Amino acid sequence: MTDKTASDARQLYFEDFEVGRRFTTASHEIDEAQIVAFAQQFDPQPFHLDAEAAKQTFFGGLAASGWHTASITMRLLVTSGLPIAGGVIGAGGEITWPRPTRPGDVLTVESEVIEVTASRSKPERGIVTIRSDTRNQHDETVQIMLARLVVPRRETTSARSRSSSTTCQPDSRQP
Amino acid sequence: MTDKTASDARQLYFEDFEVGRRFTTASHEIDEAQIVAFAQQFDPQPFHLDAEAAKQTFFGGLAASGWHTASITMRLLVTSGLPIAGGVIGAGGEITWPRPTRPGDVLTVESEVIEVTASRSKPERGIVTIRSDTRNQHDETVQIMLARLVVPRRETTSARSRSSSTTCQPDSRQP
Repeated sequence: MTDKTASDARQLYFEDFEVGRRFTTASHEIDEAQIVAFAQQFDPQPFHLDAEAAKQTFFGGLAASGWHTASITMRLLVTSGLPIAGGVIGAGGEITWPRPTRPGDVLTVESEVIEVTASRSKPERGIVTIRSDTRNQHDETVQIMLARLVVPRRETTSARSRSSSTTCQPDSRQP
Repeated sequence: MTDKTASDARQLYFEDFEVGRRFTTASHEIDEAQIVAFAQQFDPQPFHLDAEAAKQTFFGGLAASGWHTASITMRLLVTSGLPIAGGVIGAGGEITWPRPTRPGDVLTVESEVIEVTASRSKPERGIVTIRSDTRNQHDETVQIMLARLVVPRRETTSARSRSSSTTCQPDSRQP
């Protein structure tokens, strides 16, 4: 992988996330060889495997698997976008691919905190919902992801005493 | 990849999908080497890279990246689960990981048609929403995915004349 240099190495805790805070990753250039290699392993369909055969398909040319775009997005978030203490751990989310990723695309991920949800049952962590838009070099969006991330608190003890008076919405679904 | 033998080679069109129809894939066994190789490329975090380091983390041991589970699910659907004419093409969906995928897990995907949506603007295709549960050998669910798939009609001409009287719900979001 040929990501541009990563940035912030500071570790982020639940207390550091507020709605509206934004993060931008480094960028990654995808080429035909990467698209085909991923597809051979995980999504072996003509429009991901063969530029010539792809012309006759829905995509009208070679396109990356949506799961490849998602995986590159994850790499960018992990290596340069979201330095969360304990790691980038997703409980789930929503994903759409408004436009295919093509050979030669240079992808960058821009993220924004959408919701911050404290926990009653697990005072040592919370859920941060982040919207991550993956864009190509023409500023076209190839993926929109709403991810629910499990984020540890910096101070568990004081967090526990605060948890009953928090204004954040508790979420019974969290792990 | 070492999937068990695939099954039905018959091509499915929009007309073949009705709510409640079910599909089951072949199975795939994941091992530590696969988990680490995927993580090195797309999700380089200790709990996906190193069994020993993973013990001290949220996961309490080596776990596959959720995107790895998603990618294996896609492979199983493409090679043995959903023989859709034109391919398995997702417009987007929702994904949750209720439980980690572990080394040695044997994954199988069970899918059910949840919604079938005709199109007014694109009479040659429709959207089929499928719920796919990825389960391990203990019948525990490691991933739930609701995917909106773009599916071509078998007969475009007659489909066009029927489209105004269809009982299916039109969907303006479709590609």
